[in-house]
Amino acid sequence: MITAKARAVDGPDKPFRAAEIKRRDLDSHDVLIEIKYAGICHSDIHTAHGEWGEVNYPLVPGHEIAGIVTDVGPHVTKYKVGDRVGVGCMVDSCSECENCRKGEEQYCLNGMVPTYDGVDKYGEPTQGGYSTHIVVTEDFVVRIPDNIPLDAAAPLLCAGITTYSPLNHWVAGPGKKVAVVGMGGLGHLAVKIAHAMGAEVTVLSQSLRKKEDGLEFGAKDYYTTSDPETFNKLAGTFDLIINTVSAQIDINAYFSLLTLDGTLVNVGAPAEPLSVNVFSLIPHRRSFAGSMIGGIRETQEMLDFCAKHNIVPKIEVISADQIDEAYERVLASDVKYRFVIDISTM
Amino acid sequence: MITAKARAVDGPDKPFRAAEIKRRDLDSHDVLIEIKYAGICHSDIHTAHGEWGEVNYPLVPGHEIAGIVTDVGPHVTKYKVGDRVGVGCMVDSCSECENCRKGEEQYCLNGMVPTYDGVDKYGEPTQGGYSTHIVVTEDFVVRIPDNIPLDAAAPLLCAGITTYSPLNHWVAGPGKKVAVVGMGGLGHLAVKIAHAMGAEVTVLSQSLRKKEDGLEFGAKDYYTTSDPETFNKLAGTFDLIINTVSAQIDINAYFSLLTLDGTLVNVGAPAEPLSVNVFSLIPHRRSFAGSMIGGIRETQEMLDFCAKHNIVPKIEVISADQIDEAYERVLASDVKYRFVIDISTM
Repeated sequence: MITAKARAVDGPDKPFRAAEIKRRDLDSHDVLIEIKYAGICHSDIHTAHGEWGEVNYPLVPGHEIAGIVTDVGPHVTKYKVGDRVGVGCMVDSCSECENCRKGEEQYCLNGMVPTYDGVDKYGEPTQGGYSTHIVVTEDFVVRIPDNIPLDAAAPLLCAGITTYSPLNHWVAGPGKKVAVVGMGGLGHLAVKIAHAMGAEVTVLSQSLRKKEDGLEFGAKDYYTTSDPETFNKLAGTFDLIINTVSAQIDINAYFSLLTLDGTLVNVGAPAEPLSVNVFSLIPHRRSFAGSMIGGIRETQEMLDFCAKHNIVPKIEVISADQIDEAYERVLASDVKYRFVIDISTM
Repeated sequence: MITAKARAVDGPDKPFRAAEIKRRDLDSHDVLIEIKYAGICHSDIHTAHGEWGEVNYPLVPGHEIAGIVTDVGPHVTKYKVGDRVGVGCMVDSCSECENCRKGEEQYCLNGMVPTYDGVDKYGEPTQGGYSTHIVVTEDFVVRIPDNIPLDAAAPLLCAGITTYSPLNHWVAGPGKKVAVVGMGGLGHLAVKIAHAMGAEVTVLSQSLRKKEDGLEFGAKDYYTTSDPETFNKLAGTFDLIINTVSAQIDINAYFSLLTLDGTLVNVGAPAEPLSVNVFSLIPHRRSFAGSMIGGIRETQEMLDFCAKHNIVPKIEVISADQIDEAYERVLASDVKYRFVIDISTM
């Protein structure tokens, strides 16, 4: 067993504390990763606060993991010591069901194993990336291209793939008009990726506070959703809307912005149900879809795409002692645009 | 002006009464149709009862119209006197917008003209098929194939195209599993059409009362939704679900029946919003879509498809004096499966 230093939380209202956790000895296909950076995702906060159901505390969150391979199991073929690698939101799946065989392990019919707050095939609780080391089977490890710094790579493993996958699946590209709702950790990456794919990108944000950034990231237009005129002006405009906001919004107003056969994809998951007026979907054969991260193959494709197009998130690196403060700032939308924990401070 | 006998309703709680209405003189591309049969659609009831917003009473409903051409305007090229023709839910559109040019006139960006309770390009209120005659521009008239009797043809003009269009758009066919929610006027046609397209069809109905009919119409399976076990058993099964029910249902339970990338299409339009749990869409990249009738070209395609596959609705022909009673029976789900008014009784 390997002992890793970590930051854990003991309950919904508890602060983070220093902890030691055990990582399993390497199985034949396992990779030991020394974690260098871990991003702070809104899901970490939802889970730590117990907002998404029962949590197995103490919890070590973190599923935006970038680090270096420091050991490999005897039958590992894909990675060697010294490789720059990443781990995202899942660390295993059944590999045999229809969805796994399609490379969509995130939708594993037998349930993929989440990077934290899950149970692995050995029956042990999984613990995430707010820690110095992690052991993951090589099929759930991806390679970080050389021109992406490790700190900036971390958020790509969740925020990046979460936005890349629907943009890819619904074919954002030349001739397509894409709106991104929310300019946070996910939203700012969605803008960069959709722009690099060749789509015409519009940001819909609560305020115009981050407009300059949005245009710099590649948006052609930037509108505030607090002005009702925005919804009149943009009615029937977009082929695809990526909604990154996990708070309650009047989703019907956003449906009205879709063109014929347009789709609004929620990648944010509000805890409460949304009130959907079917009359706002029927008129233009509009769709409302959900999407969750992406498969491992697609995650690698996303990293290679980002490397090719020089896409990295804009980040603020913090120390391990600042996690509680960072959570508060995320909830106050006071982050540009992703916090990344420097694991050397653990 | 042509005087037509009709049945009109004067307010949300009023019974139908005999009325006379005017039809315009034939414009150059107009067709005069002597109506033989008119189907009773649930939309007629919603509109007559004022449940879908302001209504311009007196109202003559009816948008499932089958009849014979008795006169044509000077420049009509598509139809001649004696032709067997139909008219559905719309009688005009701008013909110039992007959607009209795609043949999707039902989604006309300038607003298609509904067959009743609309305003035509002459500024006159439109009145529907519960009447002896109607005048319609030839582009919104379709041809009824010889082997479809006129009484059975009528419901195809709304119920038929409303179900054919999403089945066609989302490609129901061999290898696809399709569920039809509700076995009423729309549902029973959805079963027949999806089966003829080659899909494996399952009916999800409140009770097993109509099971025998469902299997006869082409369903492979038939389940009652009042048994929670149905939802466990069928979890993750269907590529496509056509929801024909316009009442409030727990839509999230139905989402759980979709497979990876599956779509639930609502063709029924509940007056109240549905409560959508985004967590039920995200896990398998599921979609919730709306669909409304179909374009004119597709409506003709549907009629030809039904003729080829010997698909007709199961109907109960009534006289004009029985409309109120028929409305009550539709609301009580006491109809197998569509009422059609014999206009000769008007």
